[in-house]
Amino acid sequence: MSVAIYPGSFDPVTLGHLDVIRRSCAVFERLVVGVLENKRKSPTIAATIRADLIREAVGDELGAAGDRVEVTTFEGLTVECARTVGAGFIVRGLRAVSDFESELQMAHLNRKLAPEVDTVFLMTGLEHAYVSSSLVREIAAFGGEVSGLVPKVVLEHLERGRHPDG
Amino acid sequence: MSVAIYPGSFDPVTLGHLDVIRRSCAVFERLVVGVLENKRKSPTIAATIRADLIREAVGDELGAAGDRVEVTTFEGLTVECARTVGAGFIVRGLRAVSDFESELQMAHLNRKLAPEVDTVFLMTGLEHAYVSSSLVREIAAFGGEVSGLVPKVVLEHLERGRHPDG
Amino acid sequence: MSVAIYPGSFDPVTLGHLDVIRRSCAVFERLVVGVLENKRKSPTIAATIRADLIREAVGDELGAAGDRVEVTTFEGLTVECARTVGAGFIVRGLRAVSDFESELQMAHLNRKLAPEVDTVFLMTGLEHAYVSSSLVREIAAFGGEVSGLVPKVVLEHLERGRHPDG
Amino acid sequence: MSVAIYPGSFDPVTLGHLDVIRRSCAVFERLVVGVLENKRKSPTIAATIRADLIREAVGDELGAAGDRVEVTTFEGLTVECARTVGAGFIVRGLRAVSDFESELQMAHLNRKLAPEVDTVFLMTGLEHAYVSSSLVREIAAFGGEVSGLVPKVVLEHLERGRHPDG
Amino acid sequence: MSVAIYPGSFDPVTLGHLDVIRRSCAVFERLVVGVLENKRKSPTIAATIRADLIREAVGDELGAAGDRVEVTTFEGLTVECARTVGAGFIVRGLRAVSDFESELQMAHLNRKLAPEVDTVFLMTGLEHAYVSSSLVREIAAFGGEVSGLVPKVVLEHLERGRHPDG
Amino acid sequence: MSVAIYPGSFDPVTLGHLDVIRRSCAVFERLVVGVLENKRKSPTIAATIRADLIREAVGDELGAAGDRVEVTTFEGLTVECARTVGAGFIVRGLRAVSDFESELQMAHLNRKLAPEVDTVFLMTGLEHAYVSSSLVREIAAFGGEVSGLVPKVVLEHLERGRHPDG
Repeated sequence: MSVAIYPGSFDPVTLGHLDVIRRSCAVFERLVVGVLENKRKSPTIAATIRADLIREAVGDELGAAGDRVEVTTFEGLTVECARTVGAGFIVRGLRAVSDFESELQMAHLNRKLAPEVDTVFLMTGLEHAYVSSSLVREIAAFGGEVSGLVPKVVLEHLERGRHPDG
Repeated sequence: MSVAIYPGSFDPVTLGHLDVIRRSCAVFERLVVGVLENKRKSPTIAATIRADLIREAVGDELGAAGDRVEVTTFEGLTVECARTVGAGFIVRGLRAVSDFESELQMAHLNRKLAPEVDTVFLMTGLEHAYVSSSLVREIAAFGGEVSGLVPKVVLEHLERGRHPDG
Repeated sequence: MSVAIYPGSFDPVTLGHLDVIRRSCAVFERLVVGVLENKRKSPTIAATIRADLIREAVGDELGAAGDRVEVTTFEGLTVECARTVGAGFIVRGLRAVSDFESELQMAHLNRKLAPEVDTVFLMTGLEHAYVSSSLVREIAAFGGEVSGLVPKVVLEHLERGRHPDG
Repeated sequence: MSVAIYPGSFDPVTLGHLDVIRRSCAVFERLVVGVLENKRKSPTIAATIRADLIREAVGDELGAAGDRVEVTTFEGLTVECARTVGAGFIVRGLRAVSDFESELQMAHLNRKLAPEVDTVFLMTGLEHAYVSSSLVREIAAFGGEVSGLVPKVVLEHLERGRHPDG
Repeated sequence: MSVAIYPGSFDPVTLGHLDVIRRSCAVFERLVVGVLENKRKSPTIAATIRADLIREAVGDELGAAGDRVEVTTFEGLTVECARTVGAGFIVRGLRAVSDFESELQMAHLNRKLAPEVDTVFLMTGLEHAYVSSSLVREIAAFGGEVSGLVPKVVLEHLERGRHPDG
Repeated sequence: MSVAIYPGSFDPVTLGHLDVIRRSCAVFERLVVGVLENKRKSPTIAATIRADLIREAVGDELGAAGDRVEVTTFEGLTVECARTVGAGFIVRGLRAVSDFESELQMAHLNRKLAPEVDTVFLMTGLEHAYVSSSLVREIAAFGGEVSGLVPKVVLEHLERGRHPDG
């Protein structure tokens, strides 16, 4: 069975990420979404909540394919997480507008650290080419509209953050 | 009347920025320079002083065209500032050596947030291709020479910072 | 009155080109589309027919704004054409996926050849980011589907080419 | 069964191409190498011979995995070839030094032409990052050494071309 | 005598850096490695220790050529350090995967600040193309394997940091 | 003695090329400018005349440093020419706006073909960043002004071409 890991911060998960998850399910038999828990950085949303939001979004929007998706949190190196979950592939999404060079650098390094794990790049839909978690956070911080950029469960989560007594 | 906003941190304004302002005045009938006041970051120079320096530099160096330039400070999203000042266009300067991809990403996102506001890219003169506010700050911090990189009023401002009793 | 020239081969005009024409009409009061007649290359479509197709497409799809658009053919340097038609600006479209560096190089060279003419870059819509005339020609040559990539008049022109007795 | 097509000119096949074929076999259950027969260009090596060289190289160097690789020639659009052979995926190799933007453009266009076929990018090993068929042809034309760049069968083919009576 | 400075943070020195030092020794008669002491950032390793590690690695791995290499720490602008040590050239390493644009920007700025000092770019070996000090730090922080990325003395230094009583 | 080769088509030599030659003379003790004679392409100017123009321009504009410059024509691979003239280095000029990736690819390939020859990149002055021989040819073909882009001897050569009886 071909197993892949899709690592990231997902702070928060965007429609671009979900697009990559959907496309990965067509390529691999099992997909593990790895939510990076970086103890040295302070994320906007806790890692376990980020993982929950992905689980809910996958359930809402991927249908039957979603059954082959697992979500886990991890600390440390992606290749170690890949080994732990038994993944032979790392999935990375490429946007039309993306930091392509740093992706290649990371992939070469991961290949050096774990030659048995290969990186596969999938391309997000054009309509998601400009979306990133950091831009979503910035827009949300100023009360801007992020519908169309993130799944419904994230919209609701951000909304609750704004009106904590709601 | 065609109105554009030219947003940025301008910390401090450089001769490259002034070049973009001058070229924008040839395209648009009114130009609003929007000085971003980011309360979460600590700028080297306060936003109101950054705005004053731009006003003085525009007065010194743009002649009559400068009368069509306004300078304002703003917080939050550029597209909101564009709506507030009635701008139909966002101006961005491209340097021969520039972070082009992140500019396109931001422009696509802004188009999604405000489809009625379009982004127009102008190209700075080659002689300003290597200038950025962050490099100016770094050079000035080490007592290096920044004349030729920033307008005269900024030179004087930086000089006063070095000799506060002068 | 602000006048711009939008130069290109337009062999054939695509929906991406039309998008740039539409956006240019919002910035400039008069737009001249300059169809390059390169006698040393053999185009697929003759320059005068390429110009006719643009005129028709502009009439079909731009409404009133199209009245401020002229189409002309020219040989030689873009800056000479700009001077002839009295344009102070050259418009270039940037795609999310584009040969950005060669655009900057050409713009710097044109500025050197004609300092009084400035280049303004507009960004095509994301949905046109992957369209180019050469790809359209290649797809059409193999009988592929180019609707959604080119305006209706070009579709009909390509169709007539395939069934010359039709 | 997941089926992918790996299209290209392979004029001639390089060790970089073989690396991509090997990695593709780990991802997909069946791989069709599609050798583009472009009647408008005059290749150095005829398409059927290019296909034969790939078959031999795959047999020599991929072991059992090579049994899941087919080689075919095709004319026209890649997406049509994908449909003909029943492939749901197009494989493209990314080199550390590559024309990445044109790859993304082609992939977006192919997705528009055939939404049911997705493009998957694999990364060649660093040691193949500088190899391309056109460089191999150029070196061979001047009698330079191409061992280490192409498989053994291609070396022999190029050698025979040099000494036709050998 | 041609003298060059090779500036950087070297936090820690990698095999890629050593490769650039070795290649620089072939071009220049004397090479000064300048270890940047940035008082505003907190490095992982103190500047004097970073310099010691470079000296040891150069002694271990460069042989006789190493006699023409000096290592110094400096604060402030690279061009000032170049003037202090009498260097007419600044050496920068380019990786196959590198932040090329920011390198060019810095080089143009340095040329403006000190026209008598020119920047020379050397290319690291492909096998070092994915190595950077920040990636080394990140891998080491999670207990990953960095042999093959850094010289032996750095391996030992990182090892001692992990087992302070060892 | 350090010897470098600076290869190219120089069809024709530009002020950007001369800038690289001047900077190379500061780094190397002897510089051989290698004019590529590509028998399969038809250059605008014959290789021997291109070499003569470089010799004259070097004599006119480099002063005493020019005495260390030789000009030769060559066919075939750059690394073979380097070996023939005893050069340990290949010089390449980088423009602010340049095809950087293909330069790196070529350099890696050359290193593979001739490990004893290293490539050194120098950066042309910003004022030459947009100049290329192909643009010069195109401007000249349409009677445009190329002074400021090429040395005086090339101006005269192009002028004679235009008025053959002059």
